[in-house]
Amino acid sequence: MDAVGIEQMRKEDSLRVSTGIHGLDTLLNGGFPKGHAILLSGTPGTGKSIACFQYLFEGLKNGEKGLYLSSDEPIENLLKEAAAFGFDFSESMKNGQMKFLYLPMEAQDVYRDIETELKHERYERIVLDSLTPISERPRWMVSNGQEHIPSTTAMTSTTIPLGSTQAIRSHVRYLLTLFKQQDSTVILTSEVTEESKNLSRDTISEFLVDGILFLTLDTTMDRRKVTIRKMRRTKHTLKPHDFSITDQGLMIHL
Amino acid sequence: MDAVGIEQMRKEDSLRVSTGIHGLDTLLNGGFPKGHAILLSGTPGTGKSIACFQYLFEGLKNGEKGLYLSSDEPIENLLKEAAAFGFDFSESMKNGQMKFLYLPMEAQDVYRDIETELKHERYERIVLDSLTPISERPRWMVSNGQEHIPSTTAMTSTTIPLGSTQAIRSHVRYLLTLFKQQDSTVILTSEVTEESKNLSRDTISEFLVDGILFLTLDTTMDRRKVTIRKMRRTKHTLKPHDFSITDQGLMIHL
Amino acid sequence: MDAVGIEQMRKEDSLRVSTGIHGLDTLLNGGFPKGHAILLSGTPGTGKSIACFQYLFEGLKNGEKGLYLSSDEPIENLLKEAAAFGFDFSESMKNGQMKFLYLPMEAQDVYRDIETELKHERYERIVLDSLTPISERPRWMVSNGQEHIPSTTAMTSTTIPLGSTQAIRSHVRYLLTLFKQQDSTVILTSEVTEESKNLSRDTISEFLVDGILFLTLDTTMDRRKVTIRKMRRTKHTLKPHDFSITDQGLMIHL
Amino acid sequence: MDAVGIEQMRKEDSLRVSTGIHGLDTLLNGGFPKGHAILLSGTPGTGKSIACFQYLFEGLKNGEKGLYLSSDEPIENLLKEAAAFGFDFSESMKNGQMKFLYLPMEAQDVYRDIETELKHERYERIVLDSLTPISERPRWMVSNGQEHIPSTTAMTSTTIPLGSTQAIRSHVRYLLTLFKQQDSTVILTSEVTEESKNLSRDTISEFLVDGILFLTLDTTMDRRKVTIRKMRRTKHTLKPHDFSITDQGLMIHL
Amino acid sequence: MDAVGIEQMRKEDSLRVSTGIHGLDTLLNGGFPKGHAILLSGTPGTGKSIACFQYLFEGLKNGEKGLYLSSDEPIENLLKEAAAFGFDFSESMKNGQMKFLYLPMEAQDVYRDIETELKHERYERIVLDSLTPISERPRWMVSNGQEHIPSTTAMTSTTIPLGSTQAIRSHVRYLLTLFKQQDSTVILTSEVTEESKNLSRDTISEFLVDGILFLTLDTTMDRRKVTIRKMRRTKHTLKPHDFSITDQGLMIHL
Amino acid sequence: MDAVGIEQMRKEDSLRVSTGIHGLDTLLNGGFPKGHAILLSGTPGTGKSIACFQYLFEGLKNGEKGLYLSSDEPIENLLKEAAAFGFDFSESMKNGQMKFLYLPMEAQDVYRDIETELKHERYERIVLDSLTPISERPRWMVSNGQEHIPSTTAMTSTTIPLGSTQAIRSHVRYLLTLFKQQDSTVILTSEVTEESKNLSRDTISEFLVDGILFLTLDTTMDRRKVTIRKMRRTKHTLKPHDFSITDQGLMIHL
Repeated sequence: MDAVGIEQMRKEDSLRVSTGIHGLDTLLNGGFPKGHAILLSGTPGTGKSIACFQYLFEGLKNGEKGLYLSSDEPIENLLKEAAAFGFDFSESMKNGQMKFLYLPMEAQDVYRDIETELKHERYERIVLDSLTPISERPRWMVSNGQEHIPSTTAMTSTTIPLGSTQAIRSHVRYLLTLFKQQDSTVILTSEVTEESKNLSRDTISEFLVDGILFLTLDTTMDRRKVTIRKMRRTKHTLKPHDFSITDQGLMIHL
Repeated sequence: MDAVGIEQMRKEDSLRVSTGIHGLDTLLNGGFPKGHAILLSGTPGTGKSIACFQYLFEGLKNGEKGLYLSSDEPIENLLKEAAAFGFDFSESMKNGQMKFLYLPMEAQDVYRDIETELKHERYERIVLDSLTPISERPRWMVSNGQEHIPSTTAMTSTTIPLGSTQAIRSHVRYLLTLFKQQDSTVILTSEVTEESKNLSRDTISEFLVDGILFLTLDTTMDRRKVTIRKMRRTKHTLKPHDFSITDQGLMIHL
Repeated sequence: MDAVGIEQMRKEDSLRVSTGIHGLDTLLNGGFPKGHAILLSGTPGTGKSIACFQYLFEGLKNGEKGLYLSSDEPIENLLKEAAAFGFDFSESMKNGQMKFLYLPMEAQDVYRDIETELKHERYERIVLDSLTPISERPRWMVSNGQEHIPSTTAMTSTTIPLGSTQAIRSHVRYLLTLFKQQDSTVILTSEVTEESKNLSRDTISEFLVDGILFLTLDTTMDRRKVTIRKMRRTKHTLKPHDFSITDQGLMIHL
Repeated sequence: MDAVGIEQMRKEDSLRVSTGIHGLDTLLNGGFPKGHAILLSGTPGTGKSIACFQYLFEGLKNGEKGLYLSSDEPIENLLKEAAAFGFDFSESMKNGQMKFLYLPMEAQDVYRDIETELKHERYERIVLDSLTPISERPRWMVSNGQEHIPSTTAMTSTTIPLGSTQAIRSHVRYLLTLFKQQDSTVILTSEVTEESKNLSRDTISEFLVDGILFLTLDTTMDRRKVTIRKMRRTKHTLKPHDFSITDQGLMIHL
Repeated sequence: MDAVGIEQMRKEDSLRVSTGIHGLDTLLNGGFPKGHAILLSGTPGTGKSIACFQYLFEGLKNGEKGLYLSSDEPIENLLKEAAAFGFDFSESMKNGQMKFLYLPMEAQDVYRDIETELKHERYERIVLDSLTPISERPRWMVSNGQEHIPSTTAMTSTTIPLGSTQAIRSHVRYLLTLFKQQDSTVILTSEVTEESKNLSRDTISEFLVDGILFLTLDTTMDRRKVTIRKMRRTKHTLKPHDFSITDQGLMIHL
Repeated sequence: MDAVGIEQMRKEDSLRVSTGIHGLDTLLNGGFPKGHAILLSGTPGTGKSIACFQYLFEGLKNGEKGLYLSSDEPIENLLKEAAAFGFDFSESMKNGQMKFLYLPMEAQDVYRDIETELKHERYERIVLDSLTPISERPRWMVSNGQEHIPSTTAMTSTTIPLGSTQAIRSHVRYLLTLFKQQDSTVILTSEVTEESKNLSRDTISEFLVDGILFLTLDTTMDRRKVTIRKMRRTKHTLKPHDFSITDQGLMIHL
C-alpha cells in the first residue's frame, strides 16, 4: 500500500453517513463512519426497529439505496410498524430504491438470499434486523475446508461443536465480509436479555463490529437511554444519553 | 404497496381492542392495537389467568368471538376459576361465541388442534395460556424443509439442537403467524420464575411479540404491579402501576 | 354448561377445607379451597412435614379420610416424627380412616401404587411428601402416545429430553389430574434450596398448582415465616407472617 | 401400631445421645435424638473432622461402640490429626470398641465394606466423613429393579442419568436406611464450597437427614460459627453461635 | 546452569521493551520485560487494537521488526483503523520491517501460517489480536502423542473433551512456546465480556502469560482505566489509572 | 497402634517446616506441619510462584532436598523468574540437592515422571506448580479396578464421567498419597479465577489438603493479602494479613 493508498484511507475515513436519528449525528461527529458495521443492541421494546426505519429513510432522502433484511418479522408487519411512525416506504419500494427481504430461518442455507441480492444490487445502507437468530445457528465445516450445510447425517460428520462460540464467530465474520465487499454502512440489531449486562446475546458479535449503540430502559424513572459503547475512528463520549420515542422516531436529548 | 395501502395501514393502526382490564385501556390509548400479539408475563399467582378471562369476557360484551387455548389447565378447572370471579362463559359457550380448547402437550403435533380450529372459525380475540410449555418443546426440521415430528429415530436425523433457542423461535414464529392470518388480537401468557429478571422463561418470545405486560409481586409491601414493557404503535409510560385483584378481576390504580 | 352448572360451581367454590394449622384458616378465609392442590415449599427444616401431619390430623377429627404418600421418608420414621408432636395416627390407621404409603422411587413405575390406592378408596385429604423426587424423574413418550417406561434401549428411542422441563410438567400434570379425579384437597411438599429464590426446585410446579405456601427461615433473627404466594379463588395478603413450631405443630402469629 | 407402640415411640424420642462437643448438648436439649442422622456441613477448615472425633470419643467414655468411615482421608492421617487434639483411640481400637474403616472410592461397589461391617457388629455411633464423594457417584438401575454397577457397557444400558439428583437421592437414602437398621446415631460430614449458600454440595442430602449443623467462618472478624439449621424432635434456636477450636476440640460459646 | 548463566539471566531481566503507549513505560520501569508475553484484556471498544498499533509502531521507530497476527479482522480494515490514528505502516510493510498476517480461523490447522512465518523471519515484537478465537478452538490428541486435527471421524477418536480447559491450556502453551523460541516480546489481546469480572473469556490464559494489562470502561463517569494486574520481574502498582484515546493513541494519565 | 505410636505421633506433630516466607512462620507456630500438603491458592499475579521459590530456597539453606514440579511453565522461564528475585538454584541443581521437573500435560500418563523421580530420590520439600491442570484431566477406570488411560476407544468404555468431581478427587488423592509416602512437606499451587470466591478452580482440592493459604489482591487499595484458611494441627488466626512482594520475595506485615 503506497502513500496514495494511505491518503485515500484518511479521506474515506472522514466520510460520514448521517444516521437519521435526531441528535445522534452530533454525538458521532457527523454520523456512522462510511462502510462500518454498527451493532444496535437492546432489550425488548427499546426502539431498535424504529431506529432502523429512520436510518434507511434518511438514506432514501439522500438518494441512497437501502436494504432491510428481516430475520424475525414478516415484511408486512414491518411496513405497518413503519407506517405508524410516518415512514412511508411504498414509493421507494416501487421504484427499486428500497428493498425489504425476509430471511427464512428454517431454510438450510440462510445466506443464499442475501448473497443473491447483493450480487445483483449495491446498497449504501443495509439493516439486518436481527443478527441474533443467525448468529445462533449451528455451523459445520468438513475436512476439505468447504462449508457444509447441516444435513440429516450432520451429527456424525461435524467437526465444530453445535452452538459453539466458533460457530457464532464464523457466522458474524461471514456476514460482515459480505457487507464490506459492497462498502455498505450496516446496522445489525442484536437481542439483549433483561438479566444480562452483556452487549449481545451471543457475547461475540460486539467484538467483531466497528461500533456499538446500546439502548436501555429505566422503568422506575420512565426513561430511555442510549450509550455509544464503541465507535471506531470516532471520538465519542461514553456517557448514556436520554432519548424519547416520538412521532418522528428516536430523538436523543443533547 | 400503493398510497391507498399506506392509508389503510394508518387507519388500521388506530383501531384499538379494549382490554377489559380496569384502567389498562387508559394507559394504552384505548386498548391493545388490533391484530397484535401481547405477551402477559409474570411469576406464579400474579393474576395472569384472571386477566385473560377479563379480556375475553370484554370481547363477548362487544359481540366478538373468543378462543381460550389452554396448555396447562383442564377446561373444567378454568371455568371454575372464572366463575369464582363472576365470569360466566356458559351462555356464550352454548351459542358458539366462546370456545375453550385444551391442548394436549403429550401429543406429537401440538398445532393440529389449533390449526383445525382456526380453519373453521375466525376469532377476534384469542388467549394462549400459556405459551411456555409450547415454546419449550423440541422441534425438528429435515433437509427438504418440511417439518418433522420427533420420532424414535429423531436422534440421528435431527438438524436443529433439541431445546435450542432456534426451536423456541421456530415455535413462537409459527404461532404468531397462525394468529395473524386471522388478524386476531392475542394474549399469550408466559411463565417467569421468581429468581429471573427476564420477561419470559425462554428469553426469546419477548423479542417476537408486539407488546409485553409484566406482572410482579412485592410481598413485603403486599403490592401487585403491572408494567407496560413494550407496546408497538403505542405511546406509553414505562412506570410500574399498582393493581389489585378484586371481585371483578384486575383493577389498575391510575 | 348451563346456569345450574355455574351455580354449582359457585357453591363448590365457597367450600373450604380447614388446614389444621393454627392461624392459617383465618388468613385463607376458612381454609384451602376444596379440591385444590397446594404447594408447600421450603428449605430444609422449615416444618413442612409437621404441617402435613396437622393437615391430615385435622381431617381425621372431622371424619375425613386421609392419605400420606411418602417419597423420601420410611413410614416408620414419619410415625415417630408425628408422635413427637403428639399426632397419634395409630387408631385411625387401624380403622382404615388413615393410610401411609411409601413410594419406592427406584421402581420403574412410580404411579402404579398411587393409582391402585386411589382406585379402591376415596380420600378427602392427600399429602404427597415430597413432590420433588417425582418431578425430577425422567419421562419418555413414544410415537403412539402411550407412556413408555425407560428401558435399556431408552437412549435411542426417547423423544423427550431426559430431565427436561417437559418431563417435569408431564409428571406434575399427571399427578394433579389423578388427585382432582377424586376431588381431594392436596398438599404437595416441595424442596427449595438455600440459595434459590424460586418456589420449587423444578421451577415448574408452582405454575401448575392452585395455591402456594412458602416457608422461610431468618437465622440471624431466629424467625420462621410463612407467605401465601398464590391461592386461587381466595383474597389473601402477600405479606410474610411469623410462625412458631410448638408442641401442637405450626402456629402462625396473627 | 397400637397404643403401646406410640408410648414406646415417645419414650425413644426422649432418648438423647450426648455430642461430646462442649455446649452443643445444651443447645440440643441433651444431645442428638437417638437413631437420627445428622448432617455436619461446612467449608474447608471449619473443624468438621475434629467434631467427629469428639463425638466418637464421647461415646467411648460411655462404653458405646464407634465406627469412623473415611471416604477421603487415610486412617493413619486421621489418627495423627486426632492425636494432635488429644484423642487417643489406640486402646479402644485394640479392644474392638472403636473401628476406623477406609472406603476406597475407586472400587465399583462402595457399599460392600460398610454392609459387611454392619452385618457383624452393631455401633451406637457412626461417623461418615465425608458423605460428599459417595453422593456424587453415578448410580445405575436396570429394568428388573436390581442395582447395576457401572460397567464398560454402561453408556448404552443406563436408565438413570449419570450424576443426576436421582442418583444422589438413591445413594443418601440407601446409606440412611443402612444406618437406621442398626438404630445408630450418625454424623455425616458434608462439603460446602465457599461460594455456595447451600447446606451441601449436592443440595439433596439436607432434605433427607434428621438434623443439620452448619459450620461457617467469618475471616474478617476471625470468628467461627455453628448454626442448628434443622433438628427433628428438638426445640432449638436458629441463631448462629460462636465457637472456638481449642486443645479439647470445638467449644461453643453460650 | 553456572554462575555466568545466572549473570546472563539478571542482565536479560533488566532489558525492557518500550511500549509506545504514553505513560505506560513509566509505570513499568521502562517497558515490558524483553521476551515476555503480555495479555491485553478488555471489553469491546476499550482500545486494545490501538494499543497494539502503538506498540508495533514504537518498535519500527527503533528499527525492530514487527508482526501483527489478526484472527478476527481482515488486514485491510486494520490498516484503515491504524491510518485513522496516524499510524502509517505502508513504508515498513514495503521494506519488510513490518508484516500483517491474517489467520483464517476456519482452516483446520491454525498454526501452520504462524509457524511458517516464524521459521523464515525473526520478529522482536509480535501482536496476536486476538487470542480468544484460537484458545476456544477444540484440540484433539491421539494416543501416540501427535496432534490430531479434527476430522469427520473426530467424534469417535477424540481423547480430550472438546472446548475443555485442557484444550485451552494446550493452545495457549503452544503459542507461548512458539513466540518464546524467538525471544519475541508479545502482546496477546483477549476478549472479556461486560458481565465478567475475569481477565479473559477462557479464564485460563491469564495464568499462563507473564503480564496482564486490563482495560475497563466506566460509562457513567465517561472514563477509561488501565490496571497492571500482573507483570513478572516488575515492581508495579495495582491501582487503576485513567487513560484517554487521543489522536496519538492511548495516553495514560500519571 | 500402641502408646508408643501415639507418643511418636505427638512428637512428629510438633515438627515444623520453616516456610521461608517472611512473617509466615510466626503466624503458623513455626512453619508448616511436617509432612502436610498445603494448597497455595490465588488469582493471577498474586505471587504464588515466588512463594514457592522462597519455600524451596529455605530448605536448601537447611540442607534439605527440594523438588519443583512444573505443569505450566518451562523450567528455563522459572529459573529466570527465580533469578530476578535473587534465588540462585544453579549450584544446588548441579550438586543434586534441587531438581526442577517439567510435567508434559499432553502426555497420556502424567504421573509416570513423578513416580519415577520419587522412586529414586527422597525430597523433604516438594512444590507442584500448579495442581490445576492435573486435577482437571479426565480419568477413567474400568471394571476390573485397574486404572485405564484414555485411549481412542475411551468414549465407549469409560465408566466415570469425564471432568467430573470424581475424576478430580481421584487425581488429588493419588498425588497426596504419592507425596505422603515420602513424608514430604508439599506446596500445591492452585488457580482461582477473579470472579470466584472459592479456594480452587476445581472446588474439591481444598477439602483434601491439610492446609490452605489464600492470596488475594485489592487493586483499588493497591494491597496484597494472605489468609490462612485452614491449617491442621495449628492454632491460627483467620484474619487476612497484608503482604508485599519485595526483592527477597513475599514479606508478610505482622
